Amino acid sequence: MAKSSFSVRILGSSSALPANNRFPTAQILDCNQQYYLIDCGEGAQMQMRKYRIKIQRIKAVFISHLHGDHYFGLLGLLNSMQLLGRTSKLNIICPAKLKDIFELQMEAGGGRFQFPIHYTFTDEIVESVGDTLVYSDANLSVTAFPLKHRIPCSGFLFKQQKKQRTFKKESLNLFGVPIKLIQEIKDGADFIMEDGTIIPNALMTIDPPAPKTYAYCTDTLPMAETSAYIKGCDTLYHEATFAEADVTRAKQTFHSTAKQAAIVAKNAEVRQLLIGHFSARYLDLELLENEARTEFLNSFLAIEGKLFEI
Amino acid sequence: MAKSSFSVRILGSSSALPANNRFPTAQILDCNQQYYLIDCGEGAQMQMRKYRIKIQRIKAVFISHLHGDHYFGLLGLLNSMQLLGRTSKLNIICPAKLKDIFELQMEAGGGRFQFPIHYTFTDEIVESVGDTLVYSDANLSVTAFPLKHRIPCSGFLFKQQKKQRTFKKESLNLFGVPIKLIQEIKDGADFIMEDGTIIPNALMTIDPPAPKTYAYCTDTLPMAETSAYIKGCDTLYHEATFAEADVTRAKQTFHSTAKQAAIVAKNAEVRQLLIGHFSARYLDLELLENEARTEFLNSFLAIEGKLFEI
Repeated sequence: MAKSSFSVRILGSSSALPANNRFPTAQILDCNQQYYLIDCGEGAQMQMRKYRIKIQRIKAVFISHLHGDHYFGLLGLLNSMQLLGRTSKLNIICPAKLKDIFELQMEAGGGRFQFPIHYTFTDEIVESVGDTLVYSDANLSVTAFPLKHRIPCSGFLFKQQKKQRTFKKESLNLFGVPIKLIQEIKDGADFIMEDGTIIPNALMTIDPPAPKTYAYCTDTLPMAETSAYIKGCDTLYHEATFAEADVTRAKQTFHSTAKQAAIVAKNAEVRQLLIGHFSARYLDLELLENEARTEFLNSFLAIEGKLFEI
Repeated sequence: MAKSSFSVRILGSSSALPANNRFPTAQILDCNQQYYLIDCGEGAQMQMRKYRIKIQRIKAVFISHLHGDHYFGLLGLLNSMQLLGRTSKLNIICPAKLKDIFELQMEAGGGRFQFPIHYTFTDEIVESVGDTLVYSDANLSVTAFPLKHRIPCSGFLFKQQKKQRTFKKESLNLFGVPIKLIQEIKDGADFIMEDGTIIPNALMTIDPPAPKTYAYCTDTLPMAETSAYIKGCDTLYHEATFAEADVTRAKQTFHSTAKQAAIVAKNAEVRQLLIGHFSARYLDLELLENEARTEFLNSFLAIEGKLFEI
C-alpha cells in the first residue's frame, strides 16, 4: 500500500517575466505518491527533472488560466510523457480554449498522443458564483472556484479523501468480530453478534484523521469570497506579486500584494500561507515575506525547490 | 560603428526529450552585435539569461519547423520582450501555421503585442526545389531551402553582407582623390581626375574579405541536395540525432546520424561542422563526435553554452 503523503513542491515562483533565476508558476502536489500538477509554466519539465519528480506519476493537471506563464510548459511535458511511453490516462482541468490550442499545435506537428487525455473545462465555473467539483479519485477531490483576474481564472481546493475509520483490535475478542468483516466496519458498518445483539460502529472504531486541504489561488485581486471558499483549509497558496509600496500597480494588473494575500489567509483561518508569483522587480523576497507576516505570522516564501507538508 | 562579429552561441543540444541537462534546440547567431535566433525550444529565454544575451537585440527569428522542441519557447520569449518594453520590429521567418497558433494563444490570453511582428512564411519553399531569399538587412541575408523530415522543414543559409572594398590611403596623394568621394570608391566607383584621366577602382582599393556563411540544417534525413545548397559555407550546423548503431532508427524518424552529417559536410566542402539535436539515449556524446570525425575531421559538438566563430 502506498505510503500516505500530502505535500507540495514548488517548481516556479516567478510572475510573467522569468528573471532572477526564477521559473514561471508550476507546483507538484504529492498525494500518496501520486502527483497532481498545478499550472505549468515554461521549463516546468526541466524543474521536475532537477527535483527527480517522475512525470509519469502525474495523474491530473490543473491550469488556472491561459496566460502563458501558467501553461507554456504543458504541451512539451505531454510530448515528453509520450516519448517515454506513457499509456495511462491524463486528466487536464482547464479553460476549454487550451484544448483548441493544443489541437492546433498537434495538427501543425503532425502527431497525436498515444495515451488518453480527459479534459474537464472550468469556463462555466469561473463565470459564476460558487465552487464546483472538477476532479475526484481515490486520493483526493478537487473543487474549482472563481478568482478575479484580467481573464477568466479559477482557484482550486484540493481535499484528501476521507480516510477509513480505525478498527480497534480489541473488538476481535470483545465482540467476536470475524476478520473478514473488518473492512466493512472500517467503512462504518455496525456488527450483529450471533445472538442478534447489534454492536454500534462507534464502539469498534475511532475517527480517522480529518482530511487535509490545500488551496491554490493565482492570479487574482484579493477577494473576500476566497476566504469563504477555502475556510479553514490547512495550507493556502496565494499569489503575492507585489509589495505594499506597489499596491496601485497590483490593482491595475489584477494582482495581490503579500499583505493582501495574508489578509485572505487570516480571514480564512488557514494553518499556513505560501506566497509566490513574485514580480521580477524584487531581487530580495524577504520584504514580501515580512509584509505578509505583519498580517499572518505563518507565511512562507514558495520558492523553487521548496517542499511544504500540507 | 558596431564591431564586426559573426559567431553562433548554442542554447540547446537536445532532441525532443530534454534530458541529461540538455535543452531543446535554440541558437543565437551574433552578426555585428545584432542577434538572430534560430529555432526556440522550451527554456531558450532562460538560457539567454544564463549566457547574458540581451533579448531585445534579437532582430529576427528563424523557425525550421513546427515540432514543439523547435518553437515552444518562442511565445514566452515574445511576452518577455513585451514586458521589458520592446517597441522595435521583430521579424519571424517560419511556417504559416505558427502565426495561427500564436494568434489563438494571444486571443486566449487577452493580450496583444505592442511591438510590430513581421512574418515571412516558408511553406512554399519547403514544398519545392531550390533556395529562396527569406530575410535581408544591413548585416546579412538569409536563404531557406527544403529539408526532409516528417513534416515540412527548412534549412537556412546565413550570409554576411558583402563588405565595402578597402580604400588605399595612398590614393589620396597619388591621384588627388577628394575625401568626400572615398565612400563612393569603397562602393566600387572609378575616379575621374581633373584632366579627365579615369582611375579604375581596382587601383585605389583592395578586395574586402569574402562574406562568411553559416548553414543550419535540422531536423532532416541526410540529403545530397543539401551539400549543393550550402556548398563551401564556412560553418555548417547539421543535426546528428543518432549514432551509427542506430542508423535504422534515424531513417525511421527522419533524422541523421553523426556520420551522415559529416558526409554532408565533406561533400559541401565546409570549413567546420557543428553537430547537435542529440537523442536522450546518449549520455556520453564523444561517441557521436568521434563518428563524425571519421568522415570529417573538423567536427565539433554543439552543446549548451558553446560559442563558435564562423
